[in-house]
This record gives sequence, structure tokens and C-alpha cells, in this order.
Amino acid sequence: MLNVGVLGAGGKVGRAMVEAVEAADDLALAGKVDVGAPLTDFLDAGTQVVIDFTHPDAVMDNLKFLVDNGIHAVVGTTGFTDDRLDTVRGWLADNPGVGVLIAPNFAIGAVLCMQFAAQAARYFDSVEVIELHHPHKADAPSGTAYRTAELIAEAREAAGLGKVPDATTAEFDRARGARVDGVRVHSIRLAGLVAHQEVLLGTQGETLTIRHDSLDRSSFVPGVLLGVRNISDRPGLTVGIEPLLDL
Amino acid sequence: MLNVGVLGAGGKVGRAMVEAVEAADDLALAGKVDVGAPLTDFLDAGTQVVIDFTHPDAVMDNLKFLVDNGIHAVVGTTGFTDDRLDTVRGWLADNPGVGVLIAPNFAIGAVLCMQFAAQAARYFDSVEVIELHHPHKADAPSGTAYRTAELIAEAREAAGLGKVPDATTAEFDRARGARVDGVRVHSIRLAGLVAHQEVLLGTQGETLTIRHDSLDRSSFVPGVLLGVRNISDRPGLTVGIEPLLDL
Amino acid sequence: MLNVGVLGAGGKVGRAMVEAVEAADDLALAGKVDVGAPLTDFLDAGTQVVIDFTHPDAVMDNLKFLVDNGIHAVVGTTGFTDDRLDTVRGWLADNPGVGVLIAPNFAIGAVLCMQFAAQAARYFDSVEVIELHHPHKADAPSGTAYRTAELIAEAREAAGLGKVPDATTAEFDRARGARVDGVRVHSIRLAGLVAHQEVLLGTQGETLTIRHDSLDRSSFVPGVLLGVRNISDRPGLTVGIEPLLDL
Amino acid sequence: MLNVGVLGAGGKVGRAMVEAVEAADDLALAGKVDVGAPLTDFLDAGTQVVIDFTHPDAVMDNLKFLVDNGIHAVVGTTGFTDDRLDTVRGWLADNPGVGVLIAPNFAIGAVLCMQFAAQAARYFDSVEVIELHHPHKADAPSGTAYRTAELIAEAREAAGLGKVPDATTAEFDRARGARVDGVRVHSIRLAGLVAHQEVLLGTQGETLTIRHDSLDRSSFVPGVLLGVRNISDRPGLTVGIEPLLDL
Repeated sequence: MLNVGVLGAGGKVGRAMVEAVEAADDLALAGKVDVGAPLTDFLDAGTQVVIDFTHPDAVMDNLKFLVDNGIHAVVGTTGFTDDRLDTVRGWLADNPGVGVLIAPNFAIGAVLCMQFAAQAARYFDSVEVIELHHPHKADAPSGTAYRTAELIAEAREAAGLGKVPDATTAEFDRARGARVDGVRVHSIRLAGLVAHQEVLLGTQGETLTIRHDSLDRSSFVPGVLLGVRNISDRPGLTVGIEPLLDL
Repeated sequence: MLNVGVLGAGGKVGRAMVEAVEAADDLALAGKVDVGAPLTDFLDAGTQVVIDFTHPDAVMDNLKFLVDNGIHAVVGTTGFTDDRLDTVRGWLADNPGVGVLIAPNFAIGAVLCMQFAAQAARYFDSVEVIELHHPHKADAPSGTAYRTAELIAEAREAAGLGKVPDATTAEFDRARGARVDGVRVHSIRLAGLVAHQEVLLGTQGETLTIRHDSLDRSSFVPGVLLGVRNISDRPGLTVGIEPLLDL
Repeated sequence: MLNVGVLGAGGKVGRAMVEAVEAADDLALAGKVDVGAPLTDFLDAGTQVVIDFTHPDAVMDNLKFLVDNGIHAVVGTTGFTDDRLDTVRGWLADNPGVGVLIAPNFAIGAVLCMQFAAQAARYFDSVEVIELHHPHKADAPSGTAYRTAELIAEAREAAGLGKVPDATTAEFDRARGARVDGVRVHSIRLAGLVAHQEVLLGTQGETLTIRHDSLDRSSFVPGVLLGVRNISDRPGLTVGIEPLLDL
Repeated sequence: MLNVGVLGAGGKVGRAMVEAVEAADDLALAGKVDVGAPLTDFLDAGTQVVIDFTHPDAVMDNLKFLVDNGIHAVVGTTGFTDDRLDTVRGWLADNPGVGVLIAPNFAIGAVLCMQFAAQAARYFDSVEVIELHHPHKADAPSGTAYRTAELIAEAREAAGLGKVPDATTAEFDRARGARVDGVRVHSIRLAGLVAHQEVLLGTQGETLTIRHDSLDRSSFVPGVLLGVRNISDRPGLTVGIEPLLDL
């Protein structure tokens, strides 16, 4: 049984994590702490791992306290610059048994979609990305699609592939999307959708499609639990859940 | 048993039509005529319907002969301007029992995709079109996708719908595609693909997707046979196979 | 401005309808009545149309009161047998200006998927249905998929089509699904899914796919509002939203 | 420049391989040999790698000759039992510099689909497989889908996952497909299709879909060329193209 604490337990994500920890057979909820409550509560409860979905203003103080007290951390809070990551690495160097996982995206399917796309890109002549979201999204393409296209472009270059074949001569310029390092990204905005991404790869006579559908906002839960269950075996700083996926 | 003749029988499409007529239980191949051969062969064979996949330079002479001799025609040859259609209408006025079907696209699935998209567009807040083709295609978007978007835009306007919702503020401009009368069309070019189109419609909590895949070039055959079997019941000029589909 | 009342306003669906009526520019919320409250409240408020998502035990009394008082009704409550429908028809015969719409499914996309599938089925050699739901669903195939397959089978028979081609000789019998009047229905159960259906149609060289995705439970709202806005023009009983869709 | 020979050059697959070798900038066609012609032709032409798509009755003699003469081989011919593979291993032990690749499936996309599905299966509660083929196929499910399901089941067991969640109580038994080691495989047969497979994986709030479409029979070409270019670096026997994909 692993004793797990939740920071930011009063927020939307925090509440979902409290529920998820309580529902898991191998995890015990050691404590939940919201804004203003003292972190020392975690010590009294014998907390081994803390989940932090709080705020960029609070997360560094939280991490300093947790690392100094030998508590592992799984962090979904945003705002980690390279400077901040270096600071965390410094604290961990002084506490060598402690593990911290900081990830921008805990949706396992989204991360696998990106990884598989980059792996497959070496073997296909053509590749394009379609990302599909609700119409309230302000930016196009999505950050995930942009990063996916960058990874694909890197993989193609490393494999010595040239430009994707494209005979288009007559072309308009007003569809939503972008060309990222030579990879076309198409952005669909549609009422009723949540967050979806499709990578299409093609070569002679065949295509491979890798699609991720995020149908509700709880899709980060399985990724956070994966982190919670594995972080004690990964001392030091881990960035992104990719290293945990053992691909 | 219907006696069917094939014009342009030596071409790729013509050969496929000869095979299709021979394979059909209710059709008899009355004759096949290629460039240079006399059209009078059809008369001796008692031909009732002729399929014409020839050339813009030859098709008007062919049609004049067929109409004057009381033979129905199903025509996939391109190059029909409004002037040419009016000329054919004039010949048909003088031969009131004869039917001529001229269609730019005989793929039933492509036509249904377009029709269903236009019908459904009245009931959805959002709609976008994705067309996907092999990378040797020179134009983007495809003519079919362009026409689909026009039909959707007309249907939305007739239904009093306003602009599709779109909160995009940050947007790049280099994806392949177009905005057609306010409808976004995304163009994918991918090795391994043939010709495909997907219309995505969305409203609160649900989406409807209508997709057409043309997997090989014989997809016009069922539509031509539909025309052959029905044209004798449709005297005068019919443009497009839509009226035959009884939607 | 149309005065709209909501019955069952305290339930999940009822609350969503109250919100939707309040959000619509052309509708005014004339009253909301929950279990135990008197229906006469609607009369005082000048209610023109009432939405009823209540209970089979309550709905007949509700309808009797509404029809007798000249109020149109849009009903999503279940449990309408042929007997019950006949009873409602009798009341409406005595109140000739009143319209009642009773529908088992208000999701416009689901209804269009069914209708388009039946229309298209006449022109394709092959057709199969895939329905995909969350793994807590007890019945397979879904009622919607079953009904879709029946409509497809009827359309094929009316068009004189024979059996779908199928050379399968070696076959196992343990996949989830059914054969409905000769149409194969495949049932997928997958964590993360909500409610989805795909109809695949195929003929020589091409396929047509019609897919409906219901991504959250509010997908009935646009269909109910369509009923509310049109029911005063449709005196008598209307079953299903199909007649309102003008296909 | 690599000197490549083609065995079975008169067959459909062989002809496609001859074309592909001639079209590749880094490969030279050293010779093509069909049934009855002497294999010694390859020696005179300085052939380094031979592609063998012949017949189970001929392939063992071919391989013996090639291995004994220090020529690498890439083999798509079927019928390799464990006994035959052991025999080939024996020949290779006596000729340590020679490499032989024998693969049941050279379509890179199909192999990646299988591999990615097995890798991802560890992280999802649910998984089902849909395979879609033309209606002339006699067996259901397809061999590829059956193998995919086995790999998924092994991956789930290794990861300690239990049964996939499934609340189905009312179920019919006549859909096409199978349950393979607990994994449901659905088989679609549809006119117009070629060969397609889709693996659906789901967990809380998200799904991942991996789809392979084989649109024409030349989809084996890129995989064979990958083998031709790499086999000289892989002495001994390699079974399947998976090890070459560097996943």
C-alpha cells in the first residue's frame, strides 16, 4: 500500500485525483492539502508520494518542502522553465533517494500518439497531421500537434528522408493550420468535439493512421497514477511521462 | 434484356464498361465502337442505350447521331459547357422520346456524400471538409471538395445559419486547402492514398461524419449502369446522377 | 418570442433543457415544474409549448392536461406503446389545433445517420454496422444499431437487392454483435468511449461511411429545440423527429 | 550500388519487384530468373542480394544455392515451418557472413500497427480489433488480426492486466469475428475494400486508434527494399521485418 497525498485537493483536477487515489486498491489517501493548509500534514500521515496540481506561484515552495522531507512528487502544474527545472535538480542532488516527475501532458494516449508517429515517420514517404478541437480554442495548430510535427520532422531528417512528395501547384492559403518544419498540420474546429489528433502516414500502397481522442477532461488520471506507482523507482528528475512508458 | 453499346470501347474506361455490361444479367452488349469506326454499327445491332466515354472533340457528333436515331445515351465525356448542354436540349426537343444523361461524376458514393452533407448542414452549427488524395494531384482543394463546400454553404444560407463558430485568433496560413464561401476545406496529400473525402458536422454534444473512399478507378461503373438502366424512363436531358438517386 | 415550459425541471435532462431555453434568443422560459408541483402554473404563465422529460408513470396525465388546455408538447419520456400513442391521438382529435411530438431519440446526428444509411443502402452491394459504446452498457447490439440494421434491410429488400456478398467459410462465433435481417452489426465496448455508430457501405471500387459520435449527454438539446420551434405548425401526433428534418 | 537479383521474376509480385529495383537509385538489377532458368545466372552477374517470391516447392533449393554461394536473400515465399527454418539456420552456420530474411508480411504499416498495438496495450483498460476486407476472403478473422490479438493478449498478461471490462449481458452470437485469448476481433466484409485493420484502445477519458490500410497489392514493396538494403548487415537468419524497424 502506497501512501499518497494530494496538493491542490480543492481544485477540479485535485478532486479528480483524490477520487482516483481512493478508488485504487494499491493506493491509500494519506492526506489532501489545499491552498493555505500546512504541508506538514503530509509528514504526520507518513505520505510517500504527493501529487501536485496547484499554481506556478506555489509549486516551487511545495517541491522544496517535499524533496527536503524525502517525499516523492508527481507534478502537473505548469510554468516550468529550464531555470526552474535546474533548481529542482539541485535540490534532488542533495536528496539522492527522492524522485520528482514533472510532465506537461499526462494523457498516455496523447504521448503514445506522438511517440509512435515519430517512430513510424522514418518508414513512410508522406506524413500529415490533423488536429481537431472544439471551436472555443484560440490557437491553431494546437501545441500538441505542433510538437508532434516537430518530432516527425526530426525523425525524418535523422532517417535521411527528403521532402514529402507534393505535386500541388494550384493552392489557396486560407485553410486553418500550419507547415511545421515541412510537415503540414491541419486544424479542424467543430462544435461537439473535445480534443483529437490524427497522424496520417503513407507509402506505396499503404497508409498508417494513429489517432488520439480525448473525450473528457479526466484523461490525465491514468497517467498520473502511472507516475505515482513508479516514481519511487526513479530517483532524480524525470520530465514527461515518456520514460515511464518503456517504449 | 437491354441492348447496350459502348463508344470509346478501346479506352481504359470503355474496356471496363464493356466488361461490366457483359457481366450484367439484364444487359446485352449490342456493339462496341472505337475511334474511326462507323456509328451505324449500333443501328444494325438494335442498340437501345449507348455509353459514351470518348473525347470532347467527338462527343457532340456522337450525341447528334444517337439522338436523331432514337438511341438513349449515358455520357461521362467531359467538356460540357452551358452552350453545349443547350445544343443537346435542342436536339432532344426534336426527338421527344429520347433520354440523355450527362454526368461529371458517376461515383454514387461521392454524389451521396455531397448530397447528404448539404442536407445535414442545415442542422449543425459547424462543418468542415477534409479531402485526401495521392501526392501527384496538382490542384488543391479537389473539384469535388470545392463543389461540396459550395453546396454546404448554400444549404446553410437557405437555413438562415450564420458563420460557423471559430475562436481562432493565432493562426498560421500555410496548410493546404481553402475557405470556400466560409466553409474550410483541408487538403491532405499522401503517398498510398487514392481519392477520399470526409465531411465533418458538429453541434452540441455530437458530430456526424460522412466519408467517401474511392479505392480504385472502377468506382464509376455502378453509377453508369444505374444510368443505363433508368435513362429510357427519363426523356430529355438529365445532368448529374443525383435525380436518379431518388433521395 | 415563444413561451416554453419545462416538466421534470429538476432532473438532469430537465435542467439542461431549462438552460437551453434560457440561452435561446427566440425562446422565453415560461415556467418549470417538477414532480408534485401543479401543472396549472403553466396556464398562468401563458405557456405555448411544454417539454416533458419525466417518467412513464406521469407522462400520460401530463399530456392529457396539456392537450386539453391547448398547449403543444415535445416529449422525450420513454414507455410509449402503440396503445398509449392511440390514446394520445384520441385526445388530439378532440383538440385539433394542438401538436404533440414524441421521440425516442432527439440526437439529430443519430437520426440522420439512420436515415442516410437507409437511403444509401439501395445503391451498395455490401453494408455492415459497427456500434461503439462504453463498457458499462448491458445490451449488445445497441437499440439504435438494431433499428438502423432493420431500416437498411427494409431498404435493400424494397430495392430488390439480394444477400450481401460474403465468402466467409471459416468463422468463429464469439465476437460481440448480431445479424439483424441479414445485416451484420458489430458491437465494440471500450473504456473512454461514450456512444458512437458507423455504417459502412461498399460497392465496386468505393465505400461510403456514415458515422455518428455522441460525445456528451447534452446531444439531445438541439433536437428538442428543433421540436419546440416547429411543433405549433404540426397539429396532431408526430412520432420521431424524422418528419421535422425535411429530408 | 547494390546488385540485386529477382527470383520468380515472371510472377505478379516478381514483376513489381523488378520495377522497384530498377526505379531505386541505389540498386542495380543484376538479373531476373523465372521458373526453369538456371540460378547460376546470378553468379555471373555479381549478384549480392536475391529477392525470392516463388513457391514453397522451389524455395528451399533456391536458398541452399544462394547461401552456399555467399548471396544474401530476402524471402516472401510462404510455407516456412519450424523444421524448414532450422534447416536454413544450419546452412547459414556453415556460411557465417550470409544473411537471410524470411518474412510472412512485408507491409511495414501492418507490422507497425501490430507492434504499436502490443506496446500500447499495457496502458489501456480496453482493447478490441476490427479487421476489414473485401467479401471474397474465405477466413475470418484474418491471420494478421488473429496474430495482433495474440500479441495484445500477451502484452496485457505480462503487464498484469486482468480481463477487459465488459458489462454485456444480452448478447447475440452471429456477428463475424472471434474472441482470441480474451481479445475481441470483429471482421467486416465489404465490397470495395481491400485489406484494413484497426486496433482500438481505451482508458478513462481517452482512446487511441491505430489503423492500417492496404490500398493496393504493391504495399509489400517498401518492406522488401528495406530488407534488401539491410540484410548484408544482418548475418544469419532473421524472421519477420520487425528487427529491421528499430522500434
